Amino acid sequence: MSKKVAVVLAGCGVYDGAEIHEAVITLLRLDQAGAEVTCLAPNIEQMHVVNHLTGDVAEGESRNVMVEAARIARGAVADIASAKATDFDAVVVPGGFGAAKNLSDFAVAGPELSVNPDFLSFMQAAKDAGKVVGLMCIAPAMTAKIFGEGALCTIGSDADTAAAVEASGAKHQNCAVDAIVVDVENKLVTTPAYMLAGGIAEAASGINALVDKVLELA
Amino acid sequence: MSKKVAVVLAGCGVYDGAEIHEAVITLLRLDQAGAEVTCLAPNIEQMHVVNHLTGDVAEGESRNVMVEAARIARGAVADIASAKATDFDAVVVPGGFGAAKNLSDFAVAGPELSVNPDFLSFMQAAKDAGKVVGLMCIAPAMTAKIFGEGALCTIGSDADTAAAVEASGAKHQNCAVDAIVVDVENKLVTTPAYMLAGGIAEAASGINALVDKVLELA
Repeated sequence: MSKKVAVVLAGCGVYDGAEIHEAVITLLRLDQAGAEVTCLAPNIEQMHVVNHLTGDVAEGESRNVMVEAARIARGAVADIASAKATDFDAVVVPGGFGAAKNLSDFAVAGPELSVNPDFLSFMQAAKDAGKVVGLMCIAPAMTAKIFGEGALCTIGSDADTAAAVEASGAKHQNCAVDAIVVDVENKLVTTPAYMLAGGIAEAASGINALVDKVLELA
Repeated sequence: MSKKVAVVLAGCGVYDGAEIHEAVITLLRLDQAGAEVTCLAPNIEQMHVVNHLTGDVAEGESRNVMVEAARIARGAVADIASAKATDFDAVVVPGGFGAAKNLSDFAVAGPELSVNPDFLSFMQAAKDAGKVVGLMCIAPAMTAKIFGEGALCTIGSDADTAAAVEASGAKHQNCAVDAIVVDVENKLVTTPAYMLAGGIAEAASGINALVDKVLELA
């Protein structure tokens, strides 16, 4: 039986959505392993649109997270509000600022973050049902909100970000770019990806390790 | 000495830009092989914007090819009009409708296609300097325009598309999704990718073969 895995996409682009390389490497590794993948996204407007060439916010422009996520998913993305966590064996959330701007507001609120209600309901249902969860890059900043106090994760080794993650209630462990951190009790796997990676091959080393561990535990 | 490879991105999204999976798999394989990669794009407006969730054209919306390509390139994309083909050992062009809508107008003009002048100048300079070229998915529809009559390529096995490619002046050879077609004289490598692939792992099989052959010939 192939494992059923939900991949949650927070848009399309590192500065205002899902980190594209992380998302595609995740989809590739899952498909290579024979998993059955469903892409999900919240049906909300992005916090903002960033011109990825200049880094500037594109004033007056708005884009929908699910519509942009469909670019990565080649059209096949479902509204996470309608998805049932119990239909899946595991959930993987790539990073990019979308995790900290659309799925949550960690980018502006830091340890006082709040999490999108539809995403949070889905993730907490996954946790309650004992599903395996993989979070990469900055997505582990939502660990305490999903799993509660003391859940173990990594965002790599950036001291300020790690301190904010700890202040939010999670336990942070430094981690190399090609490695993963596993919270066995919570069935939570995290990896730094582009929080540390200097290039796409480096990012892939940790992401592949995360996907493999998620499938092993699922 | 690491090989210098230009990757040309026609936007960001299969229906109006560069096919994201094809682009990312190309970047990943090149980085894993130790190549030095530069992303290039034409600084032009997209033919149109497609809502990838519904498949509909987003009326009244416009996006710039280079700005959207920067999403895949994490910001680092240069204007192909300013790039010198002689600075590189090879050029790879992923597919997606951007190759047939932005780099050329094959999607509407078929065998009577014209090719964006900045892109065409760069590609013809690469050809004239004996550089290796890789084209995937629908990008080989531009083969005759770049290499002239009789150059050998594949777009997979779709009969209508193959006939249009032949009518444009190229020679078409059917090809499996995990295989490549090599025009030795022109140093041109092509593969069907998502013209045939049923999923991302299948697409990767041919793309990886293309990248490996491009680097071998470069």
